[in-house]
Amino acid sequence: MAAVAVATRWWLLLMLSAAELGVAPAPQPPNILLLLMDDMGWGDLGVYGEPSRETPNLDQMAAQGMLFPNFYTANPLCSPSYTPQEIVGGIPDSELLLPALLKGAGYASKIVGKWHLGHRPQFHPLKHGFDEWFGSPNCHFGPYDNKARPNIPVYRDQEMVGRFYEEFPINLKTGEANLTQIYLQEALEFIQRQQAAHRPFFLYWAVDATHAPVYASKPFLGTSQRGRYGDAIRELDDSVGRILRLLRDLGIAENTFVFFTSDNGAALISAPRQGGSNGPFLCGKQTTFEGGMREPAIAWWPGHIPAGQVSHQLGSIMDLFTTSLSLAGLEPPRDRAIDGLDLLPAMLQGHLTDRPIFYYRGNTLMAVTLGLYKAHFWTWTNSWEEFKQGIDFCPGQNVSGVTTHSQEEHTKLPLIFHLGRDPGERFPLSIASIEYLDALRRITPVVQQHQEALVPGQPQLNVCNRAVMNWAPPGCEKLGKCLTPPESVPEKCSWPH
Amino acid sequence: MAAVAVATRWWLLLMLSAAELGVAPAPQPPNILLLLMDDMGWGDLGVYGEPSRETPNLDQMAAQGMLFPNFYTANPLCSPSYTPQEIVGGIPDSELLLPALLKGAGYASKIVGKWHLGHRPQFHPLKHGFDEWFGSPNCHFGPYDNKARPNIPVYRDQEMVGRFYEEFPINLKTGEANLTQIYLQEALEFIQRQQAAHRPFFLYWAVDATHAPVYASKPFLGTSQRGRYGDAIRELDDSVGRILRLLRDLGIAENTFVFFTSDNGAALISAPRQGGSNGPFLCGKQTTFEGGMREPAIAWWPGHIPAGQVSHQLGSIMDLFTTSLSLAGLEPPRDRAIDGLDLLPAMLQGHLTDRPIFYYRGNTLMAVTLGLYKAHFWTWTNSWEEFKQGIDFCPGQNVSGVTTHSQEEHTKLPLIFHLGRDPGERFPLSIASIEYLDALRRITPVVQQHQEALVPGQPQLNVCNRAVMNWAPPGCEKLGKCLTPPESVPEKCSWPH
Repeated sequence: MAAVAVATRWWLLLMLSAAELGVAPAPQPPNILLLLMDDMGWGDLGVYGEPSRETPNLDQMAAQGMLFPNFYTANPLCSPSYTPQEIVGGIPDSELLLPALLKGAGYASKIVGKWHLGHRPQFHPLKHGFDEWFGSPNCHFGPYDNKARPNIPVYRDQEMVGRFYEEFPINLKTGEANLTQIYLQEALEFIQRQQAAHRPFFLYWAVDATHAPVYASKPFLGTSQRGRYGDAIRELDDSVGRILRLLRDLGIAENTFVFFTSDNGAALISAPRQGGSNGPFLCGKQTTFEGGMREPAIAWWPGHIPAGQVSHQLGSIMDLFTTSLSLAGLEPPRDRAIDGLDLLPAMLQGHLTDRPIFYYRGNTLMAVTLGLYKAHFWTWTNSWEEFKQGIDFCPGQNVSGVTTHSQEEHTKLPLIFHLGRDPGERFPLSIASIEYLDALRRITPVVQQHQEALVPGQPQLNVCNRAVMNWAPPGCEKLGKCLTPPESVPEKCSWPH
Repeated sequence: MAAVAVATRWWLLLMLSAAELGVAPAPQPPNILLLLMDDMGWGDLGVYGEPSRETPNLDQMAAQGMLFPNFYTANPLCSPSYTPQEIVGGIPDSELLLPALLKGAGYASKIVGKWHLGHRPQFHPLKHGFDEWFGSPNCHFGPYDNKARPNIPVYRDQEMVGRFYEEFPINLKTGEANLTQIYLQEALEFIQRQQAAHRPFFLYWAVDATHAPVYASKPFLGTSQRGRYGDAIRELDDSVGRILRLLRDLGIAENTFVFFTSDNGAALISAPRQGGSNGPFLCGKQTTFEGGMREPAIAWWPGHIPAGQVSHQLGSIMDLFTTSLSLAGLEPPRDRAIDGLDLLPAMLQGHLTDRPIFYYRGNTLMAVTLGLYKAHFWTWTNSWEEFKQGIDFCPGQNVSGVTTHSQEEHTKLPLIFHLGRDPGERFPLSIASIEYLDALRRITPVVQQHQEALVPGQPQLNVCNRAVMNWAPPGCEKLGKCLTPPESVPEKCSWPH
C-alpha cells in the first residue's frame, strides 16, 4: 500500500515518483475529464434523491452513464482548505502526478480551479506536469486586508492575474461571483483548442462554488429552492451540461471519458445556508461516517459505458488515477504500491471487485468497509470543547455511542454496521450475533494486511511561516500587486481534525 | 373544508355522501389504477435516492411518468393498523366512496389487499361501491391462537376464503409468504378481464408486504442488499413492473392512469430489519415531521403525462379522489366541502397551484406547509414513557426543541422551517428574522380560514367489543372455520398516537 496522504487532491493526482514507467500508449486514447466538486454532498443531486431536484444536467449525465452509489473519497476533508497560507510545504518533487504521466501518451493537461497542493511557486501545477492552469492555489476565503494576510491570488499558468475579492470579486453579502462562469469558459476554450489540434487532453475541473463562502453568478442567484447553496449547485449543474453538450457538438463525446465526483461530504457545519446534503447518511465533512466520505459519482463515456446503469462497485477517488492511466493505455508504475483500482472492468463489463475502503482521519485508521459491512475502530465527531462552542458536524443527528465527542476506541471489538439495511449507521450489530462474528472474521485479516503493508507518508504540512504567504506571487510586479512579506519565522504547526 | 378523518384510507376512498352528483361521463374514460404501499417511505425507491437502487421498475415508471417529490399523506399512520379487531365501528353509510361514484361512469371496481375501513360485514368493500375484493379487512398481524383472538380472515368478495397463518401462511421466522404474488395475480386477472369486456376499471391495489411483519415470496427472499425489508420492496417493484407491462401488452397503457404512493412514512420503529427509509427527512410514521407524511409518488399515463418530468406541486393523497373523478369526467359532489385538488392541470400542463398541506395527529393540527415554509404549532414524537421503553420514532435523530417527547405548544410563535434549504427540519428560522415574520404573515390567515371552515368528523373507532372480532366471518361455515365469539361487552376505547 502506498503512503496514507492527508488530502483528497493528493490522492487524486499523485502517488507516483518519476521512475521508469511501463509506457505503452494506445493509438487514439480518449480524452479524460475529471469534474471535482468541493464540499458537495452525496445527497445534493436529484439523481441521489435531493427533493428539489435541481440538477437536470447531472441527472441526465447519470441517465446516459453509470452511477456509483458506493463511491468514496480518500479523506473526509481537503486538508489544504483547513491549512492556511502559512504552510511552508506542498507536493514533493518525488511524486509524479497524473498529468505528467499522461504526457507519455501525448496528452495536453489543464487544471481549472483550486489546486491546493502547495501555494509556493515550486509546488505549482506547471511544475508538476500540467501544461495550463487557471485558478487559485488556496481556498477562496477572505477578504483579507493584505496586511496581516494577503488575498489569495488567481493564476493563469505561472503568473498571477489578480486576487480574490479584488480583480475576482466575491460579494459575501449577495453571494455574487462570476468565478464558475470563468472556470466554465476556461474549460470550454481548452476543450475546443485541443480538439482543433487533434490532441488528447486531460482536464481537471476543480471548482469550488459549493465550498463556503458559496457563490453563484447573477443569472443563478435566487433561482434555487435551496437558497444560495442551491444557486451554486444550479450553476455547476448548468456548467456540466454545457461541457457535455460541447463534447457532443464537437463530435468527441464518444472519445471523452468524464467522471463527476466531490472531494468530501457536505459541510453540515455550514448548513443550511452554506452547506449541502449527505442524503440519508450520518454526519458530514470532517468525519469518517458515511456522510463524510461517500460521494456522488457519475461516469460518462457514450458508446462505451452503457447508459442508465448503476454499479455497486465500492469505488475510491484513488481509482481515478489508475483508471485514467488505463484509459490512456499506460501502466501504473511498478516501483511502489498503488492503492487505486482500475474501474474500467466495472464500467465497461459490469464486473465487481471485492475490495476494502479505508477511512482515515490524520494517521488513524478510523473505519473500514468490506462488502456491506462497515467496522468502526474509532468513533469521533469533534471535541466537546468545539461542540460546546456550537461547532456540530452532525446537526440533528445523535446516535448513542457512535457520534461521540471523545475519541472512543473500539479496536478490539469494532462497532459494525450493515450498510445495506442501515446506510445511516444507526443500528450497530450486536457483538453477540453470528452476523457480527462472521463480519469481523472477514474484516480482521484485511485490516491486518493493510496495516502490515502500509508505507507511512511524510508529513508535508507541519511547518508554518507567515513569510511564505501569497505576498508576492510570480507576476505580481506586472500588475503592481506585490505586497511586502514579514520577517521569516518558521515554526511548527498542526491542524486539529 | 371537510371533516378531518383519522385514516389515510378513509381520505383516499370516501368523503362523499350519496347525494345528487353532477355526473357527466366522458365517452371513453381512462382506467384508474391506484397502487398504495403500506409503510413504505419516501427514501425507499432508487429514484428517491435509496443507495441500493433496487427498484428498477418504479424508477422506470418515474422515467416514463411524473415524479412528485412533495406529495403527502393525510395522516402519519393508517389508524386501523393500530386499532385492533375489537373495534365496533367502520366506514359510515353516509359516506360514498370513489368506486361507488365511478360506477356513474361505468367503471368496474376492485380492491386487492388491505381494506381497513371496518372489518364487520356491513363495512366491507362490496357494501361501499366495490364490485370485487380480494384481501383482508385488517393488518396481517399474528399468528393468533383463535381463542383469545382470531386470525385475520382473507376474503374473496363477500366471503372469507381462509385466514392468515392458516390457508394464507406467513412464516415469521423466514419471512416467506406468497401474498404479494397472489395480490399480483388478482390484479393481472382483473385487468385482463375488464379489458376483454371493454369496460373501464378502477383497481385499488393496497398491498402490505412492507408493513411489519414484512414478507416476500421465496424467489425474492435473500435477494436484497437491504435484508428482508428490501426483499419485500423488490417483490413489490417487480409486481408493479409486471402490471405496467401487462397494460402495454394489452395496448391499454395510453388509456390507463396509474398512481403509485404510500399510506405514511416508513416505520422507523421497526428499522432496520422491518422498516424502511425516509431519506433525508426527519423521523417517520406516527409523526408529523416530513418523514412521517411525505410520500413517494409517481403518476404514469403514457401519451398524456409527459415522460421524465418532476412536479413540485404540493400534493395530497386526498387529491387522488378528486383527480380520479376528473379523469372519469365526473364532478365532485356539491353538497359538502372537498379537500382534494384535481392534479390533472399539474400532470398534463405543468400547472402549479398554491395550496396548504395540513399535518394532523388525532384532532390536533400539528403543522402546516405553505410553499416552502412549514410551521409547527405543536411538536411531539412520542411520550417519555414510551421512549424510555425503547419505542423511538426518530432513531439516531435528535433536533433540540423539535423532536420533543412532551407535547410542546407553539401556536403563538410556531417553529418555522424552510423546506427547500432544510428539508430535514433541523434549523428553525429565528423568530427575530424578517423571513420568519413574512412566512408567519402568509401562513396565519390560511390556518385561520382552515380552522373556521373545518367540519369536524364523527369518531368511528372509539367503541370496542371483543365479540365483534373476526370469529365467524361470512363464508366461515362452508370452510368449517367459524369460531365461537365471547359474550358481547361493549366498552369505550381509545388509541394513543
